Amino acid sequence: MIIGDMKQKMELARKKVLNAIEEHQGTTLLATGVTGDDARLALAAVQAGARMVEPNHPALALARGYKGVTSMHAAEELRHEITMEQMAEATRGVRNVVGKDIYITVGAPGTFAEVMPTPLTEEGVVLLAKAGADGLHTHKATLEDLKDVVDIAHRNGLLVDAYIAHPADRHLFGIPCATPIEVGDTAKRMQDIGVDFVGLMTGMSYEGVKAGEIADPVKERIEALVKSVTVPTLAEGGINLDNFKAFMGTGVKIIVVGTAIDDVARKAVDQVIKTLLQH
Amino acid sequence: MIIGDMKQKMELARKKVLNAIEEHQGTTLLATGVTGDDARLALAAVQAGARMVEPNHPALALARGYKGVTSMHAAEELRHEITMEQMAEATRGVRNVVGKDIYITVGAPGTFAEVMPTPLTEEGVVLLAKAGADGLHTHKATLEDLKDVVDIAHRNGLLVDAYIAHPADRHLFGIPCATPIEVGDTAKRMQDIGVDFVGLMTGMSYEGVKAGEIADPVKERIEALVKSVTVPTLAEGGINLDNFKAFMGTGVKIIVVGTAIDDVARKAVDQVIKTLLQH
Repeated sequence: MIIGDMKQKMELARKKVLNAIEEHQGTTLLATGVTGDDARLALAAVQAGARMVEPNHPALALARGYKGVTSMHAAEELRHEITMEQMAEATRGVRNVVGKDIYITVGAPGTFAEVMPTPLTEEGVVLLAKAGADGLHTHKATLEDLKDVVDIAHRNGLLVDAYIAHPADRHLFGIPCATPIEVGDTAKRMQDIGVDFVGLMTGMSYEGVKAGEIADPVKERIEALVKSVTVPTLAEGGINLDNFKAFMGTGVKIIVVGTAIDDVARKAVDQVIKTLLQH
Repeated sequence: MIIGDMKQKMELARKKVLNAIEEHQGTTLLATGVTGDDARLALAAVQAGARMVEPNHPALALARGYKGVTSMHAAEELRHEITMEQMAEATRGVRNVVGKDIYITVGAPGTFAEVMPTPLTEEGVVLLAKAGADGLHTHKATLEDLKDVVDIAHRNGLLVDAYIAHPADRHLFGIPCATPIEVGDTAKRMQDIGVDFVGLMTGMSYEGVKAGEIADPVKERIEALVKSVTVPTLAEGGINLDNFKAFMGTGVKIIVVGTAIDDVARKAVDQVIKTLLQH
């Protein structure tokens, strides 16, 4: 009874992303971290030009000081304990202040490869959709699980961004692919099962590259991704103010930045507090 | 059965404040806004030297995008709709990451002069205390209501910071006093009914003063406050990076800064997003 409605919802959401890519000359930004879940800073991001934002459950664990976690690595270990209600509250708050034209994709318990049994339920997806989500930000590690997520998302009008990881990554944030050929093949399969935006995890396993550059193995993987799919592509992981420009020429349509934004916000707080205390 | 315990809890809390004042050469900072309720930024504030932080319900309305509010003025209109559970969650998260030696005072529905019947309940105060609060940040507009808040707070081991306002203020954030003499008299009465830290609202009604200075009428009110009580004093309202130094010589022990910190965080986000989008 709502298949047609949900298709329309998805078309509207897709349009937001295509508009963002066009507005930003071919490569737009998906802003996350503090700008994904704090309505004050999400609004600042959107007023500065961001057209896509992403609340996600590990970031919310940090925002809420859940069980005292203070690093993203620690947050990943217990992100599945964040509730769907908390994610819906954050999503609704961001939607309330950024307005309807901003694309919001939400990472929530069950959309990542979780360390505990954490099924994504129909009820949970509906909750996020009603809270204002346009899409699900997913990091499933197998095509099988990803297919289940895509189906439940599409049934309820949510698009899906999903990622390809590297087997050596510290946390598995996608389907592991060791070589550029595997990246291309897997990206095609992801598109075939209905993934709306296919991303590549970049940076997690490629330390030691010069500031401002992308390591060659990453470049090759990005090339393989970009030429294998027709849906918009993303790059996530390790993108910061030193290296973001290097992603511009690669054909990737959306760069995901979280930690680098958080670092800047934290540094600003650090400086203002120190100034106020130095008298 | 817990009177002695709660006295001990209050002594420990008072010691945190006195230590902060001593550490910061006589005038310390109470950091609020984004540093009061977002565990990531509260931690940044504490790592930069802040020893007192304040989650409060209007700021949480902004953080959560509650009903779409984006200004402090709008947030004040519906702050009473934020729940005690939300305040406890924010308090617990901040406590989890900042550790036990930081003083946390919490503004919550019922601790301010609310626009709707919003009694502060024993249950609510216990919830905040268990979440990690050391004190209640209050803005009651009458001594009568303030006395009730002090009693319920002290019964449960929480200290109270309370404020003197100006009758012309846009929002009444304390007991209104038109003249310095009234300020002094009221401050004494507040101390007599058990208020642990007496503050003065500064800035809300005194536009037009030069950057970096305090208006003379405010200076006179601060002087009246400082010489009238023996408990530590606070100044709140309109304190920013331009004028905070002017408060140093006044004898005020604690300056409360929120909006100025939020502005800096927002500006940092604005700049990083613009940089990421300018390619």
